[in-house]
Formats: sequence, structure tokens, C-alpha cells
Amino acid sequence: MFIEIGEFLNLRLKQMGIQHLFGVPGDFNLSYLEQVEADTQLEFIGNCNELNAAYAADGYARINGFAALATTYGVGDLSAINGIAGAYAENVPMVHISGIPPLHVVQKGILVHHTLVDGNYDNIMNCMKEFTVAQTRLTPANAAFEIDRVLRQCFLERRPVHIQLASDITHVKIEVDERPLNLSYPSVEPDLLSSVVDQLCGILAKAKSPALLIDNEAAVFGVTSLLHDLSNKCSIPFAGMNTAKNIMDEGSPRYIGTYVGGASQPHVKNVIEQSDCLIGIGVRFTDVGSAVFTHQIATQNYIEIKPYGLNIFGQDVPGIEIGQLLVELNKKVAPRKAPQPVVTQQPAQRKHEVAEQQKLSQELLWNAISGFFKDDDVIIGEVGTSNSALSGLKLPATAKYISQPLWGSIGYTLPALLGSLLAAPERRQILFIGDGSFQLTVQELSTIIRHGLKPIIFLLNNGGYTIERLIMGENAAYNDIQNWNYAEIPAVFNGTQAYQSCVVETVGQLQSVLDNIHLQDSLTFVELKLPAMDAPLSLKKFANVIARFDYGDRGYEILTQRSNAVECKKASSF
Amino acid sequence: MFIEIGEFLNLRLKQMGIQHLFGVPGDFNLSYLEQVEADTQLEFIGNCNELNAAYAADGYARINGFAALATTYGVGDLSAINGIAGAYAENVPMVHISGIPPLHVVQKGILVHHTLVDGNYDNIMNCMKEFTVAQTRLTPANAAFEIDRVLRQCFLERRPVHIQLASDITHVKIEVDERPLNLSYPSVEPDLLSSVVDQLCGILAKAKSPALLIDNEAAVFGVTSLLHDLSNKCSIPFAGMNTAKNIMDEGSPRYIGTYVGGASQPHVKNVIEQSDCLIGIGVRFTDVGSAVFTHQIATQNYIEIKPYGLNIFGQDVPGIEIGQLLVELNKKVAPRKAPQPVVTQQPAQRKHEVAEQQKLSQELLWNAISGFFKDDDVIIGEVGTSNSALSGLKLPATAKYISQPLWGSIGYTLPALLGSLLAAPERRQILFIGDGSFQLTVQELSTIIRHGLKPIIFLLNNGGYTIERLIMGENAAYNDIQNWNYAEIPAVFNGTQAYQSCVVETVGQLQSVLDNIHLQDSLTFVELKLPAMDAPLSLKKFANVIARFDYGDRGYEILTQRSNAVECKKASSF
Repeated sequence: MFIEIGEFLNLRLKQMGIQHLFGVPGDFNLSYLEQVEADTQLEFIGNCNELNAAYAADGYARINGFAALATTYGVGDLSAINGIAGAYAENVPMVHISGIPPLHVVQKGILVHHTLVDGNYDNIMNCMKEFTVAQTRLTPANAAFEIDRVLRQCFLERRPVHIQLASDITHVKIEVDERPLNLSYPSVEPDLLSSVVDQLCGILAKAKSPALLIDNEAAVFGVTSLLHDLSNKCSIPFAGMNTAKNIMDEGSPRYIGTYVGGASQPHVKNVIEQSDCLIGIGVRFTDVGSAVFTHQIATQNYIEIKPYGLNIFGQDVPGIEIGQLLVELNKKVAPRKAPQPVVTQQPAQRKHEVAEQQKLSQELLWNAISGFFKDDDVIIGEVGTSNSALSGLKLPATAKYISQPLWGSIGYTLPALLGSLLAAPERRQILFIGDGSFQLTVQELSTIIRHGLKPIIFLLNNGGYTIERLIMGENAAYNDIQNWNYAEIPAVFNGTQAYQSCVVETVGQLQSVLDNIHLQDSLTFVELKLPAMDAPLSLKKFANVIARFDYGDRGYEILTQRSNAVECKKASSF
Repeated sequence: MFIEIGEFLNLRLKQMGIQHLFGVPGDFNLSYLEQVEADTQLEFIGNCNELNAAYAADGYARINGFAALATTYGVGDLSAINGIAGAYAENVPMVHISGIPPLHVVQKGILVHHTLVDGNYDNIMNCMKEFTVAQTRLTPANAAFEIDRVLRQCFLERRPVHIQLASDITHVKIEVDERPLNLSYPSVEPDLLSSVVDQLCGILAKAKSPALLIDNEAAVFGVTSLLHDLSNKCSIPFAGMNTAKNIMDEGSPRYIGTYVGGASQPHVKNVIEQSDCLIGIGVRFTDVGSAVFTHQIATQNYIEIKPYGLNIFGQDVPGIEIGQLLVELNKKVAPRKAPQPVVTQQPAQRKHEVAEQQKLSQELLWNAISGFFKDDDVIIGEVGTSNSALSGLKLPATAKYISQPLWGSIGYTLPALLGSLLAAPERRQILFIGDGSFQLTVQELSTIIRHGLKPIIFLLNNGGYTIERLIMGENAAYNDIQNWNYAEIPAVFNGTQAYQSCVVETVGQLQSVLDNIHLQDSLTFVELKLPAMDAPLSLKKFANVIARFDYGDRGYEILTQRSNAVECKKASSF
């Protein structure tokens, strides 16, 4: 059949389950946006800027599966690229569509705006190659094939792809295949699959203390229920990495906790590091995931399963796909009734009576919040004190937790919330974000209000970049920010919808807000006043380890001595 | 002498005249920021996000000569890169300092946060290579040489450079040259210079109608007064490109106006295109500078002088530097008393009496504004209706005009204003920005307030992306934005300084604001309510030409027909 290039692209996006396109208009993408506007099943969500659009697409994809983002050439692409790189780092599949100048302009190197005015049209593509798994510059001759090639890579690798669509070819009709986009995995060769599964069954039969260590790719590639089945059938205890919060049922009797290298609870560390058959699912041992490389995993006891790779005790096995592998393994593996691992139950936190008028602290805040979550909530934690505290809380099994712990770009969560709200408007969604982070992307609250969405936003106002203060420069001016009247911001963004906004300073005020939040069906914005140097204990410990890692022991000593001296000098000059 | 690497970098920045460092802290740059904090002659200006920091550095450099910007690895770098690319496109020299992970981490490919967690530490550098003229990853072994190499390129090419400074080596002491940074141009070989100057003198002596066409590089490389001297001595009329607003004295009797290809005033077009010796200074014929390539310049009459290049009637002459060339040319060239070119004086705009209660329009606005400017004002115009209108106004000769017409990244001007204010706090600074653009970077108004700066900001609220509406999608939802209570924003950002804020809807209200603005020494924020489809005539004409260029004639017809059909359908469904 014949179809306009832009319409074909939209057809494919819809086949991936995409119903919203995030972005900002610009003259090189208006012709494509006209095609989006004309499509009744695809809604363009205009963001306040392109970085926010990329973050919103990221949040959308984390719930919806896939997302799409449209920018205009050069200025828009480069504004969005940090969000695209973050999606790469964190395995979030996103289709980035860049409206580029007319094809003949690009091919002849004609000098137009939004370029370096040097005739070079490769620089943006070169950048995008670094942070996407497939890229293409569409032409009428290649579009039918290239759109499918690139989108299929997005599906297979669950990472961003980049499509350049010239402003003058969107409406050109091309002949395309009528079959829908192929969204299935290539089959693993049956003999290989069977032999690997047999090998794993043999290993598991002999293993005395198998264990599962699960990272975020398990959720991204949709194998968490297969892992639950495996754990259940073979009585295998499992732990999560701290980059995989709540992707498995943390209420399971076989869930032992979060593994963070040397900073793990002793029983978690013991089960994982002493296992004679530890099966890691998509695990990446990073500084933030291993308490700065304090993990101790012996290769000879470690089976690593990646989406398309397997390593058994140090030996690579190419040609595997995780879904098919787990399906077959679950069929063939012999059930085992191992003794329950000794799980040290966390003693129930005794709720001390706290005077209502007591000033809020991080500890009191998270104690109060821990009882607030409900089934199916979407909970979003900005890196810093929020993610750090939420990582330690038990969440309802059906709650979805969103954060960006690896890429760690502050400001990510507010636009991501816009995306997750549009992907699941029926779910209660709750954001925790610090004041420093909030300032980077504040304007996207306007888009949330514009679409009548109703999240609960907790703004932790602790007067600056607390996580940085904990690392270096506790009183340094560079960690200060301007204090805003945060609670007035929803009024400035001027929704026609009702909203609640308040400032909370005491435990009693917080409890009252939490108790009454359900009474109004509206956006709720709560500014929490917190001390500047207060943080969850885990973060305080980690910050110091990070400081010594980042600056070296000698650098750390020199810098902290000097920093103290500068502060003393300043103090004495008053 | 021995000096810490970070301190040596700061010493060099100060030798370039840099007194402020823009940026956002992150764990990989805190060790360097400690060294900035300890330096009494260098102030760190914390921005709300990194893109804003890059724009602020750009605005600062346009007045101060050079600027510096500090970000943290990955997230910060990629957030800033659009601003860095813009500085490249527009010839703005900026030193970008990225705090990267510890050197041993980078060298060994260790997996840390703010990376793709794949051990690749080349991707950021690869991107920066596309948008900077020199790059380096400092080590204790190379820092003494590399810092000077890279900063000298920044000086020589007046474009951004990129320095990666690992978090664990900032405090390491290295041996460095005690001489200051070499900020002089390489001498042109005297025989070559003399022969070229003789050739040019001969050409000018024979020329019947020489003319100068001047673009922005003339200001960037500091040769405008040499050009005035040449014009004066030889009675050469001159025109400016529209990317070079007010860099020459537009009150000079030899100034003929702006050359924009076929859209030029007839007398300007005539003088430039009919000249038998047209001397172009740094001219770039782009779509925006030539009314979409309608310029008609004959190579056989065209002498092109670039900062380090010369082309005489089609023949390249390598090895020249513009400053030395113009100095020698002005010495040797024979004075000529050519008849004054026929300059069609613009008829003085007759001020119609306008009723005070009349609603504001673009025409009434700019008529009122044209009498408002004073000597030494810094005037900043966002691309769109503001830059388009201001390009057509006569500004005081000593006023500085800032815009970003080539890169054209909307939202640029508000953070750029922060930079220009810090570079020249004693000058009155006036920003004109549309609502669509303002939303991209709104938070940087907070930093302006934080530092007690006192600009005048005119926010042109015309309910969305008017420039895009003029090109395509007049009533399309994708060109709509959320309407904010703009005038309340200064209160949210909570300065301790006084400020004025108001909403203007009529001619009388505007005149009252303009008449009384000087009475208060404070930040003034004026929201101007303007019709959505109103724009300066030049922009309306240009938008249509751009639309046909961007989408092709056939694409334009198809799209506008469909757009109208969609709108009719929508309208009839009500």
C-alpha cells in the first residue's frame, strides 16, 4: 500500500503501543506534527522544553513500554540529548524523531539556521550515535525499510533510537508492507537452548545454596514473573539490586532484601556472596549499586543472564534470549524444596509517639510516609535524599517505583511524572523531589496542570543541594540555591483545575495532610521544610565513601582542610 | 613554579578577563569548585540548570569577551551542549570545564554513575568535538601544556573549547610557565601582508563603487573601529547583515542599512549588489541572513575577508589575519572622496495619535519602544517577533544588541541576560522575550533576582509560538502553550530586593510604564498582552517564504489544505 512517510511512522508507533508523542514544535518538524495532529489515535503533548520532553518520554515508557519524542533539528535535538542518554543508561526504549531541514538542503550542505552554518549535517547524527542503538536519516527510497529496522532495534534492545525526518518529505507517499511491525524475539536455535537448559538444570540440581540477584533489565525485558516461577519452583531466595526497586514482589517469603555490596544487610550479603550458584539477571555492578565496588562475587559461582547473553561460571554462551531460556528452564528444572533461607526479619519499626508540633526531619518524614502508600501507586523518587530513603522502604507489591539511579540527572523526575501520569492516569502517582532538583525542570509542572492531571507532589525543601553538601562543601556557596515560594507555583501555572498547595513544617501538619489528601480529587503540592544537612543514614554514609572515591584520599584531605579553613576565615570576618 | 591544576586553570581564566564562572555543582566537579570558591577574584554563579548556565556564559562572553562554564560529567555536559553548540555557531568564545570521574576510573573504564555504565568514556568527548574548536582531557603530565593550548584556540578562533578535569587531580601540583597566557595573534609574514595590501589599494583606487558588507565576526574579532576608519578614509558606504545588528555606528552618514538579499530595501540592495568592489567582512549567507538565498553577489566583484582568510575575486590568499590586514590597509590606502551614495532616508515615522485605551499591537508596541532606548543600553531580543522587530529599529550607536539569530534556540535570551548583567551591571539592560520562549528557561529569572540585578524585562504574551503559527499550524494545538500568570513569577522567586511587575494591555498603560520605569531602581517585569497572530510585517513575509522552503511547494500545498480541512472539521463539530 502507499502511505505518507510521516503517517507510516505514526502507524508503526501506534503498533508499539504509543499513544502520546512528547516534544516541542520547530519549523523543521511542523510538517510532521501536522500528521500527528491529524491522527486521532496519537496525541501530541507539547512540553515546555526539549529536555523535559525527553524526561517525560522516559517516564511514559517506563509504564507504557515504549515512548516517542519529537524535536526540531540542532537546537531541539541537543536540548533533549541528556534525556536520551539517560534512557540509554537506564534501558528505557524511546523513539526520537528529529525534524531536520529539507533533504536537498542536507544533502547539498546548504547554510540554514539551527546548524553551525558550516554545511556540516553529520554532527547531530554523530552525537546521537553515542546514545542510541540505531539511527537513520530517512529518504523516500529507504523509509519503508529503515523505519522498521530502527524501531525493531528499539524493541529488541529496549533503548533509544534516532530517526531524522526531513521537513520536505513527510508527505511523500511510499510503498510499504501491510504487515504490522515485527515485535517478537528471534527464536533461539532449539538444540542450543535445550543443551543450555540441561546444563543449568544440572547445575541447579547440584547446587547447595542457589540464589537469584535481580537488576532492572528483568523488568525491562518482562521476565519478572518467570523469575518468580523459578524462585518458587526451586525455592531459590532472591535479592534485588538497588537499581531494581520493587520490580519483584518484595513481600515474597523468598525475598531477602537489597544487595548493595559491602553495605548490604548481613543476611543479604551472606546469601548472595556465599551462594555456590548465584544467578544474576541483568546485573551491573556500579559504584551506586555496589557501595563503591565492595561486592564480592566469585566468577566460579556466578551465572550471568543478560537479555541476549549468558555466562556460566566464566564461560560465555552466545545466541541465547532470556525469555525463551527462562520459559524452558522453568519447564525442565526439577523442583526443589530447599530449607527456607534464614531471613532476618526486620524488626517492626516501633512508632515512637512524636509531638505534633515537632519540626519535620528526614527520619520523621519517611516514618510517616511509609504507611501512606497503597496498591498500584506509582511512586517516583528523585536521586538524592528521596530515592535514598524510598529505596529502604517496603512498597506495596503492585506499586511501580520510578527513579533514575544510574544516569542520575537531577530534575528528571518532575517531567518523568508527566509522562507516567499520561501513561497511567488512573493510578495514584506520588513524586518526591528536592528543591535543588525541582528548580532544573520546574516548568513541566505547568504541563501537568495543563492536562488536568492530579499527582501528589512532595517538594523536600532543604535549602540547596544536600547530597552535594554531604559529599563536599557543606557550607559552600556553590551548594546554595535561591529559596522560592514553592507552594505558590501551581497558582502561577494557572490551571483551570482545582489544586491543593501547602507548606508543612511539623509532624502534625504532615500527618494532617496525609490523612486528608484523599478528600480532594485534585493535584496536591506539599512543600516540606527540612534541615539542610539532614539525610537518610544510608546516604550520609555513602556520600563520604563517594567523596573519598571521587577525590582520592589525598585530594579529600587537602580539600576538606582548605574548605574548613575558608569557612573559618569567612566566619571570623563577620 | 608549582601550582595546583585547578588553580592554574583559574589563573589562566582570569588572564582572559573572566571573573565569573557559570554552572551547576555535581560530585565530579566539587573539588574544582572548592578551588573557585577559594579564589577571591573568581565568583561561581550557580545556575538553575546547565543549559541555562551555557546560555548565561554566552551572554557574558558577548560583553566580557570570554566566559567559562563548569558542569559535571555526562548529565551536566549533555544538558549544556545545546548552549555550547549555539556559541560555536554564533562565534562566542566560552571555556567549558567538565568535572569528570577520577582519572583512573576513566582510564580503566570502571562503571560509575553519570555514564552509560558500559565503560565508555569517549562518548561525551566525541560529542564535544563536534561543537568546540579544541578539547582536552587533562592529566598531571599534560595539564601545563594542554590548558594553554586549548585556551589559546579559544582566543584565536573565538569559539567554545572543552576541558575535562578529573575529580581526583584538581589539587595535584604541576610545574608551569610563569608567563601569562599568550593572547596575541600570530604575525602575518610582512612580504605577504604588504603585497596583499598593495593589491587591495590598487583595486580600491580603480573601483567606482566600493562597498562594505559587515557581519558579526567584525565585532567578535574587534575590528569595527578599523572598518569605520576605512569607510571614513575612502568614503565607502557600508551595510550590515541582519546577524550583525548595531555592531557598526548605524548613525554614520555612510551607513546604508541592513542587507537581507532580495528582502533588502531597494537602495541597500542596489549599493551592495551593484558594487564593483564589495568587501564582505565575515559574511555568511544563510537562509535567515539572505531572505532564503535571494542574495545576488557576483564573485568577480567580491572580496571576502574572514578572520584568517581572504578571497579576492574568487582567489584564496592563505596566511592573513584580519586585524593586521586592516591596520596596514588603512595606513596605505589612498583617501578617496567619492560622492556620497544616494541614501534614501527613511521617512520619519509619523506618530499617529493613538487613543490611550487602544489595545496593544505589535506595531503600536514597537513604535512606543523605538523612543525608549538610551546610550549604552544592552538590548536583548529573543528570536521570533522580538528580534524581528528590533532588527528594524534604529538603536543608539553605543547600545549593544544581543540575539541568537543563527542558532536560534528559543529560551536563550533570559539566561543570556543573566550573563550580560553580570558582565556589565552598570548598564541598563532590556530584554524582549515571547511567552513560548520564556517558558523554556524561566527559572533563570530566579538567579537574576538572587544576585540583585535590575533588568527591564518585556514579556510578549501572544499565547503560544507565534513564529511557528506564521509558518504552519496557525490554529494547531501543537502551537498552543499553557497561559501563566507571568507577572506573579518574580514574587515566587522571592528576592529580598524590590521589584516592579505589571500587566499591560493598552497603549496608555505601556506609555505610563515607559515614562515611569526610571523612577524605581529595581527589576522591572512587564507582561505585554498581544494578539496571537500579530507580528512585524517582515516576519510575516519571511515566515511564508520559510514554509515553502522547509516543506517544498508541494508539501506546503498538501499540508495547508489538510490543516484547513482539519480545522473546518473541528469547527463544525462544535
